[in-house]
Amino acid sequence: MKKHNFSAGPCILPQSVFQEASKALLDFNNSGLSIIEISHRSKDFIAVMDEACSLALELLGLTGKGYKALFLQGGASMQFLMAAYNLLENKAGYLNTGAWSDKAIKEAKLFGEVLELGSSKDKNFNYIPKGFSIPNDLDYIHLTSNNTIYGTQLREFPTSEAPLVCDMSSDIFSRELDFSKFGLIYAGAQKNMGPAGTTLVIIKEGILGKVSRAIPSMLDYSVHASKDSMFNTPPVFAIYTSMLTLRWLKNLGGIAAAEKRNKEKANLLYTEIDRNPLFKGYASTEDRSMMNVTFNLTNDEHKDAFDTLLKEGNINGLNGHRSVGGYRASMYNALEIESVAKVVALMQELEKKA
Amino acid sequence: MKKHNFSAGPCILPQSVFQEASKALLDFNNSGLSIIEISHRSKDFIAVMDEACSLALELLGLTGKGYKALFLQGGASMQFLMAAYNLLENKAGYLNTGAWSDKAIKEAKLFGEVLELGSSKDKNFNYIPKGFSIPNDLDYIHLTSNNTIYGTQLREFPTSEAPLVCDMSSDIFSRELDFSKFGLIYAGAQKNMGPAGTTLVIIKEGILGKVSRAIPSMLDYSVHASKDSMFNTPPVFAIYTSMLTLRWLKNLGGIAAAEKRNKEKANLLYTEIDRNPLFKGYASTEDRSMMNVTFNLTNDEHKDAFDTLLKEGNINGLNGHRSVGGYRASMYNALEIESVAKVVALMQELEKKA
Repeated sequence: MKKHNFSAGPCILPQSVFQEASKALLDFNNSGLSIIEISHRSKDFIAVMDEACSLALELLGLTGKGYKALFLQGGASMQFLMAAYNLLENKAGYLNTGAWSDKAIKEAKLFGEVLELGSSKDKNFNYIPKGFSIPNDLDYIHLTSNNTIYGTQLREFPTSEAPLVCDMSSDIFSRELDFSKFGLIYAGAQKNMGPAGTTLVIIKEGILGKVSRAIPSMLDYSVHASKDSMFNTPPVFAIYTSMLTLRWLKNLGGIAAAEKRNKEKANLLYTEIDRNPLFKGYASTEDRSMMNVTFNLTNDEHKDAFDTLLKEGNINGLNGHRSVGGYRASMYNALEIESVAKVVALMQELEKKA
Repeated sequence: MKKHNFSAGPCILPQSVFQEASKALLDFNNSGLSIIEISHRSKDFIAVMDEACSLALELLGLTGKGYKALFLQGGASMQFLMAAYNLLENKAGYLNTGAWSDKAIKEAKLFGEVLELGSSKDKNFNYIPKGFSIPNDLDYIHLTSNNTIYGTQLREFPTSEAPLVCDMSSDIFSRELDFSKFGLIYAGAQKNMGPAGTTLVIIKEGILGKVSRAIPSMLDYSVHASKDSMFNTPPVFAIYTSMLTLRWLKNLGGIAAAEKRNKEKANLLYTEIDRNPLFKGYASTEDRSMMNVTFNLTNDEHKDAFDTLLKEGNINGLNGHRSVGGYRASMYNALEIESVAKVVALMQELEKKA
């Protein structure tokens, strides 16, 4: 029996993507060759890379708007470093909304001054800082759009002369935004886009070339851009599977359709958390994430009973992160509403038994 | 009909690996979940990572000898940078045996002085420089053990007080060597080990911590070592498939058995190149690679006829690199001798027709 997979990432992808990727491992495009044994310089793989980049820009509404899409390696953690290496000459502003922002700040400090624009560390990051002021001498402003660990999500993005740099690893392609507000967007694939092993980077023309340091080739966005993500051998399988997922999203109706599904899933679960006296939400109500719903039992004596229900119900990956505890339902694009309904039913079953 | 795949990389892997990986994409370990939707922190994936690291050390004869195996991202190109970032304080010696050495030298120059110990650029890298002297003030010596483009391979490795750093991307696990001579070995997976998207790094204890610069987390070997390659989300699928390939190699009889097969394949093809008047080898005889056999037609007027034979014979990836021309047969561990025999038969067919 198929499990309901709420894993925070790597996470569920569309079932059709698993099937297509599985077939391509044996025979890709009727070539008689596996997708993982072909040259990345073959026309078949170049077509995959081109389609992945085009789909990413198209789905984000950025086609023809002066952006380049890259598929790199190293995850968001490598981007913490690359963003600073390529963009930080003097001072950058970082909004600290949790562990991932914190790591980004740590790496950026190796390259210049970091101004913390705001922080929600005082309440273990259960809210998004607001109303902070932005000086006008920043090289860029760095944000984390969604915070998987705490279940918070940015709704408003600051306006500034400085380019906005955003880590969208855990909510890219999940909701409509004006993506043309951003100078640099990056996202590890392993939430809404594909398997772990590739990172989407979206760069606006004109934001590079403003730092004076020498940049090693593999850390230099302009090198990767000039080689269309083929400066060296790209992670072929991860990019292929990301392309399949982006195709699936386009067929679903794009980000608008995904957002509608995601809202329905989030509403269903948050409504139950707020109604059911055995549970309480972790994140501040106005900053609740549609992707990662964090919640706790109001009384921990029900923990064993609820965990047993989850196990019997074939629910996978609902444990909260160790720094928050309780539960976390990660409900990325590919998760069906039936899986959320199943968790809600188990919460109600616990209530009846308690 | 299955093709004979001589692709230089990504390249052929064992057919059983394609099949197992394909199944795991639908259901990994009878978990009801795909290998690409499970958490990298799950015990099932930690077991995969542990087995991959243990197998790598065991096959190289390094178990219990003070080495750590890591699975990172970014390919050998990222290692060009990381090796220098972590080890180059003053001066390092590099042997220039072709395009990949050249790229490694370029990145290292950003971090310190680079002494070119020897170079075969004068003959477009068709031989391995020998008899070069090694000063005693080097932080390390960097070598490329096999040069895919030119079809040359190092047989002798220098002896020195300085640690040996070796890019073994294209011949690791293909021949027996005393791997304990090396301080740092790295290899992109996509030849003898797995799909593109992960890089094996083997580090000897005690060689780190000797440079004064601050190293960003993702470029710091000691960070990755302290987290057992889980500092951030690893490329799950590429590591899983590498582990399957290492299991296959162990079952085959390890590196000794692979070397025996590889010698048979290489002898078969080189013998025909030397015998057949229509062909000539590119690399200097004493430096010929067992992995990548480079050869040219003695008369280019036979090109169309030979290319037609290759196409009809279901031969994939035999084109030479643009900087050498002619043909290149990449014969990694998973290639069966029947595929080499097929090429030899086609070379003989061309001779009869000519």
